[in-house]
Amino acid sequence: MDQATKRELLDKDRQRVWHPFTQMKDYARQDHLLIEKAEGIFLYDADGNRYYDTVSSWWVNVHGHGHPRIKQAIIRQLEETDHIMFSGFTHRPGIELADKLLAIAPPGLGKTFYSDNGSTAVEVALKMSFQYWRHVGRPSKTKFAYLANSYHGDTLGAVSVGGVDLFHATFRPLLFDGYRLPSPLVGEWSGGRPTPEAAETSVAKALEAVKQLFETSAGEIAGLIVEPMIQAAGGMLMHPAAYIAGLRELCSRYDVHLIADEVAVGFGRTGTMFACEHAHVTPDLLCLSKGLTAGMMPLAATLCTDAIYEAFYDDYETQKTFFHGHSFTGNPLACAVALESLRIFEEEGVLDNVRAASDALRGHLPGLETFRHVANMRHLGLVAAFDLYADAASQTPYPPSERRGYQVYLEALKEGLILRPLGDTIYYWLPHCTTVAQLEDIVSRTSSVLERLGYR
Amino acid sequence: MDQATKRELLDKDRQRVWHPFTQMKDYARQDHLLIEKAEGIFLYDADGNRYYDTVSSWWVNVHGHGHPRIKQAIIRQLEETDHIMFSGFTHRPGIELADKLLAIAPPGLGKTFYSDNGSTAVEVALKMSFQYWRHVGRPSKTKFAYLANSYHGDTLGAVSVGGVDLFHATFRPLLFDGYRLPSPLVGEWSGGRPTPEAAETSVAKALEAVKQLFETSAGEIAGLIVEPMIQAAGGMLMHPAAYIAGLRELCSRYDVHLIADEVAVGFGRTGTMFACEHAHVTPDLLCLSKGLTAGMMPLAATLCTDAIYEAFYDDYETQKTFFHGHSFTGNPLACAVALESLRIFEEEGVLDNVRAASDALRGHLPGLETFRHVANMRHLGLVAAFDLYADAASQTPYPPSERRGYQVYLEALKEGLILRPLGDTIYYWLPHCTTVAQLEDIVSRTSSVLERLGYR
Ligand SMILES: Cc1ncc(COP(=O)(O)O)c(C=O)c1O
Ligand SMILES: Cc1ncc(COP(=O)(O)O)c(C=O)c1O
Repeated sequence: MDQATKRELLDKDRQRVWHPFTQMKDYARQDHLLIEKAEGIFLYDADGNRYYDTVSSWWVNVHGHGHPRIKQAIIRQLEETDHIMFSGFTHRPGIELADKLLAIAPPGLGKTFYSDNGSTAVEVALKMSFQYWRHVGRPSKTKFAYLANSYHGDTLGAVSVGGVDLFHATFRPLLFDGYRLPSPLVGEWSGGRPTPEAAETSVAKALEAVKQLFETSAGEIAGLIVEPMIQAAGGMLMHPAAYIAGLRELCSRYDVHLIADEVAVGFGRTGTMFACEHAHVTPDLLCLSKGLTAGMMPLAATLCTDAIYEAFYDDYETQKTFFHGHSFTGNPLACAVALESLRIFEEEGVLDNVRAASDALRGHLPGLETFRHVANMRHLGLVAAFDLYADAASQTPYPPSERRGYQVYLEALKEGLILRPLGDTIYYWLPHCTTVAQLEDIVSRTSSVLERLGYR
Repeated sequence: MDQATKRELLDKDRQRVWHPFTQMKDYARQDHLLIEKAEGIFLYDADGNRYYDTVSSWWVNVHGHGHPRIKQAIIRQLEETDHIMFSGFTHRPGIELADKLLAIAPPGLGKTFYSDNGSTAVEVALKMSFQYWRHVGRPSKTKFAYLANSYHGDTLGAVSVGGVDLFHATFRPLLFDGYRLPSPLVGEWSGGRPTPEAAETSVAKALEAVKQLFETSAGEIAGLIVEPMIQAAGGMLMHPAAYIAGLRELCSRYDVHLIADEVAVGFGRTGTMFACEHAHVTPDLLCLSKGLTAGMMPLAATLCTDAIYEAFYDDYETQKTFFHGHSFTGNPLACAVALESLRIFEEEGVLDNVRAASDALRGHLPGLETFRHVANMRHLGLVAAFDLYADAASQTPYPPSERRGYQVYLEALKEGLILRPLGDTIYYWLPHCTTVAQLEDIVSRTSSVLERLGYR
């Protein structure tokens, strides 16, 4: 792209666009990075500079950018139908995807309800759970339990079950009340990784809190929502599978829906197709989006048990219809892409590559841990994260005003690396196509950045 | 499609898919209509039967299905980039679309914030308005005013400002409180169309209610949200432009944001590009989706004034960031499609065709009004609606259990016509490509349906 066009576009961007989750004044002097091309794990800016997309474009991209089979799937679907409504009408890609998702999801889920993004997948789950209890004659079950540090999206229902105060506290007067539970392991690190014993104790403590809540209040709780294995936006906080297994057990015992929000962790990111598999658990409701379309375009699905579905299935006059829907529900283009992505998973051994890349990643992490200010290294599948501390041993953070994570982000760009921070937490959220050689290069560039910024 | 494939797909559909806004038991014996091809105003089912898509696939389709330029726009964009994140990063289609939308929107809007669907466009508007008042030192302005019979989407924030009890009442314990205002003209019809005098009186009365609310409570009201010109899902209720002009005047006078939800009515459906133009009004926040991508795929935009934007623009430390975003914000494919759609509007004289089709439609409506049980005919642009009454003169409805609208829907399918009812309200929501000859055919088929069902 020539410099004049680039300048013109960036000026328009500054003048006309309000970017998400962004303090726009941060870009008063600095430009947004203008991306012109995307291929595999790489993004290219308007000057031809190349960047590793180590965050999979906000955790959505799966097979790398511009995968030829995904492109072909869109073009093929365009020859059949573009969008048609999904109420009264149905279409092949919508049916086949619903069927396929239920075939690969944890056993025991029966129906697929589509929507458009992660937030709506969560809203659907909350509303289904809420309405279910009315239909089965337990209308006092109206509340939801959720975890501290959880993030389930930005629509106000999803915000109501969010536990990151930076994002959510402002909107308090618009939110419904719920029960906030402690997230396991947080505060249990001590500069290094938690020992297995510490992790076990922490899980037991967190589950005990759930049990106590259910003991007193399960009669008014419709569901408990959790991001299985990794609380992502809350800081890439990981917990052992035993925590999810424990939640399943408690939810069943106390008659509370377990809502698994796998919007971020679904589709192989943690090494298994769905994160619940680590705990051999089937939730009552499973929320999917992001990687569902391999990161090409918005689509979401909420999978539920037949028991939930059947509570809504009755004569119209009984007024049990689930009155929820979005204009683009079951968009055929997006469904066709999702189907092709799942075929790629099967035919191209994608999960094998995830495991290989995950092993390689694991091998490189000790090198990063030698940095004095790097602490709390954690890793699962294609995700790894660590925190920057002024003093790691005593877990003394940097003053927030120093915005250390943000400085790493800026410096990493110069190194051809996209490292989006969450506060002072630096993480990788790699696409499934990442090669072992790329991994080595990514970690080595990360080291250079940390070295230059004086974290040694 | 062969019969075995068709049967297999429909069985899977019944077994695996939960359709939106649908009592699934309605489809226990009857199949969903399996659509295999879509072209122009027509959908084709698996047996090759052809249907007029007179509701533009839930009010989204604009230029007809499978428009070659729209398809090409997707294919072109696939060669550039697929999805990349829109925070820290930017791209040509996202920038150009933001710029173009602001150029054609009512004057005085300054910034574009993207999201994925109509519901999120509304959630963004509500959250922006709410947070704005905190930043300007008026944190007591936390509530929203909305209209009876309004529909703004199905996420819980949008449901909170919804006025259709059938959809919204169930979820009451999860909703935030607001002020429900009467919608103008409802109850003012008397079997025929309201006289200009009756309409004027009704608008004055409805505005007086707004004024009285603002007089006592504007200090705690952040915004008023309205579907300009047509309350769509609430029953295709239309009001004169004077009502919107009056709202603008009152909102300005009492310092309340006017939020125009043009998710349904935007992009030419009412005869002007945006419905607010009928009243020569600029809202503080404008919600767009559906027709934005010509009905191809999900995308939404919330446009706001620079005054709102500037209240969030400050040093990061002041904590004024608008923490809202969706994974697929500013999806490049969808933006490229939207840009191409707007070019088609300009280059192919689309609004001229809308006006011609609208005039032809107007000419045909008196014919439908001759049916004894047809009442309350209303029309604007490509939208027309009427209600079925047991006795039109006394406005005596049919017993809801008879589901008259639904019967019309089923019968119309046999006539090659998709007439989605809203209760006993039958409506057209036609695509912009509808020809005068097609219109005549559509109305004549509608007459046959009404005739056969004994509404003469
Ligand atoms: C766990 C989780 N749930 C829900 C969401 C919301 O998804 P979306 O941004 O598509 O609305 C996200 C997005 O980051 C997420 O990480
Ligand atoms: C006026 C209006 N606002 C918002 C919405 C919600 O849009 P979506 O279904 O895309 O979430 C609709 C959908 O019908 C609508 O008509």
